[in-house]
Amino acid sequence: MIGAMLIGLDDIDALARGCSVLGTGGGGEVTTGALVARQAISENGPVRLVALADLDDDGILMPVGGIGAPSVTAEKIGSGHEVEFLREAVEQALGKPVIALMASEIGGGNGLYPIAAAARMGLPLVDGDAIGRAFPEVHMVTMNVAGLLPELIVIADERRNVVVLRPIDGQWAERLARSVAEVFGGSAAMADYVMPVSAARGSIIEGTVSLALRIGREVASAMDPVAALIKVLDAVTLVEGKVIDVERHTAGGFVRGSVVVEGHGADAGRLIRVEIQNENLVALEDGEVLASVPDLITMVDTQTADAVATENVRYGQRILLLAFACAPIWRTTAGIEIAGPRAFGYDFDYVSVEDRHAVRP
Amino acid sequence: MIGAMLIGLDDIDALARGCSVLGTGGGGEVTTGALVARQAISENGPVRLVALADLDDDGILMPVGGIGAPSVTAEKIGSGHEVEFLREAVEQALGKPVIALMASEIGGGNGLYPIAAAARMGLPLVDGDAIGRAFPEVHMVTMNVAGLLPELIVIADERRNVVVLRPIDGQWAERLARSVAEVFGGSAAMADYVMPVSAARGSIIEGTVSLALRIGREVASAMDPVAALIKVLDAVTLVEGKVIDVERHTAGGFVRGSVVVEGHGADAGRLIRVEIQNENLVALEDGEVLASVPDLITMVDTQTADAVATENVRYGQRILLLAFACAPIWRTTAGIEIAGPRAFGYDFDYVSVEDRHAVRP
Repeated sequence: MIGAMLIGLDDIDALARGCSVLGTGGGGEVTTGALVARQAISENGPVRLVALADLDDDGILMPVGGIGAPSVTAEKIGSGHEVEFLREAVEQALGKPVIALMASEIGGGNGLYPIAAAARMGLPLVDGDAIGRAFPEVHMVTMNVAGLLPELIVIADERRNVVVLRPIDGQWAERLARSVAEVFGGSAAMADYVMPVSAARGSIIEGTVSLALRIGREVASAMDPVAALIKVLDAVTLVEGKVIDVERHTAGGFVRGSVVVEGHGADAGRLIRVEIQNENLVALEDGEVLASVPDLITMVDTQTADAVATENVRYGQRILLLAFACAPIWRTTAGIEIAGPRAFGYDFDYVSVEDRHAVRP
Repeated sequence: MIGAMLIGLDDIDALARGCSVLGTGGGGEVTTGALVARQAISENGPVRLVALADLDDDGILMPVGGIGAPSVTAEKIGSGHEVEFLREAVEQALGKPVIALMASEIGGGNGLYPIAAAARMGLPLVDGDAIGRAFPEVHMVTMNVAGLLPELIVIADERRNVVVLRPIDGQWAERLARSVAEVFGGSAAMADYVMPVSAARGSIIEGTVSLALRIGREVASAMDPVAALIKVLDAVTLVEGKVIDVERHTAGGFVRGSVVVEGHGADAGRLIRVEIQNENLVALEDGEVLASVPDLITMVDTQTADAVATENVRYGQRILLLAFACAPIWRTTAGIEIAGPRAFGYDFDYVSVEDRHAVRP
């Protein structure tokens, strides 16, 4: 662990900004996550950020995150002890201690809550996650792409109800976990794909906490935050304009809906629709796909470059709609099968954002 | 275990008849349960029926049963291996072997499946259950009346999906288990209130397997099966007549509805409505309560004295509507709170069937 980077109070703003951008509208709102992380660090000291290479093969890695519709999560605050309940249940089920935490998804508040938990428990946090962004469904993680089964999933609520799932595959994990989260009131804390470090090697995306920090720092230190963000993400600007319509409802444990953006300036006259399932899934213009999952689609404020979450987007907001490349593992055959357009019910093939926009200036 | 009674092939018919009567319309249909029990016994030999007194204090007792709407259970047959999946998960969670099985509820098919499982696993079956009848909800068990918490509940489906619940109380157990059963397609196998034998002492109803057997045998050997049944149950006949209306739907994991019986002969002109939630809950006549939970209300065929299940009752059936006393534990304050009329949403106090009908001939 020598030389492990520390995440302290000064890092939370940048991290929150980066997580928000990688959340593609979802992953839960970052404001509360940042507050909780700051409080835990100020009470318990900084969190050690470690690489998988720093950890023993047979140590238990516990990925954690929230499950539920962001619209619910924003109003249903946990007790702050849920991750302790998860850890206790994991250690009881496996008869071994958890040696490190990891964010299940780096996007949104889900990138920040694990920092609070790590600070409180005195556990290191792995610099990585299982998505590299936010995705709405439980089986949409890189361990599934790598062919691992979800052998142990634990879900807890703020009352201390604990449910242990041993599903036969990722789809059953999603069905069961979604249903349990609904019973818990629409959101819950979850340890997903609990596994030994050896299984995590090659099946998670390493370096994503550092990436979120870098995104946040580049933007914070820039004279032109939007330009800095586009540069650090190597993003394509799909449109600059104004939100003129928001349709959004919470159903089946998800926020679903769409946002229509009317182009402005050089984009005047264009109408882009972004379709949502917790996260921004697809951007469409006159029936043409501009970008789609698994690539990242993020709305940012035209002045501050702050990412706009699906539960906060509203009529009249001036935004840039950005698209940028997902982690390479999502572009494999298995990755596209699990989280490509067809996995979300769309009847078109995935084309990478770079290929779609290669000729644009 | 010396002197333990054996349940063999010859006992299944009588047992099925008794379980059906104690099912008060629910607990799952007995025909398939009897078939499965017969097959397991013919392949593995008879099942030892034991008293709690025969078992060690710290041995693990696993109550088992099905959860789900009877209308679904009748058509969604399990693999027959679900109880093995439950046992495996229980032993993994507790680190100790299961030493005996018990029916969670003696009523309906739920009184018979545990016999099949006990035969297959070579485990003894406790002569007792946790209800003394059938009840629709998970927390409506005598362990809850006795103040025990549901520390370990395991649910499995025929595919080998396993869910372990560690709920904070019986109500959460019901909500979570119901939701999981729905995800599994409307029914599932469940080990509910897994506990050491010491905890079961005084918190279960002993002797109910023997009772079901005795009911079945008395009726089978009688010249007048209906009279024999009424005598062995010490039952009140609420009405003799014809089913003239059945309203029944499956929703929220339950069969709900009502059955209207038109009196016949001496009862001509009377109309009795029986309200249902998986089981027969309440019998009403002109707004007056004739009998209610936790007492047992069972419809039986006027000729054969066969009990009529809620999922099979149909227009034109000639039936007797019987009511008889529940086990004494259900008449305690806690028992009435958990499974009395108000627990099912009715706005009246429980009066025992004996008190309601003390002056009737």
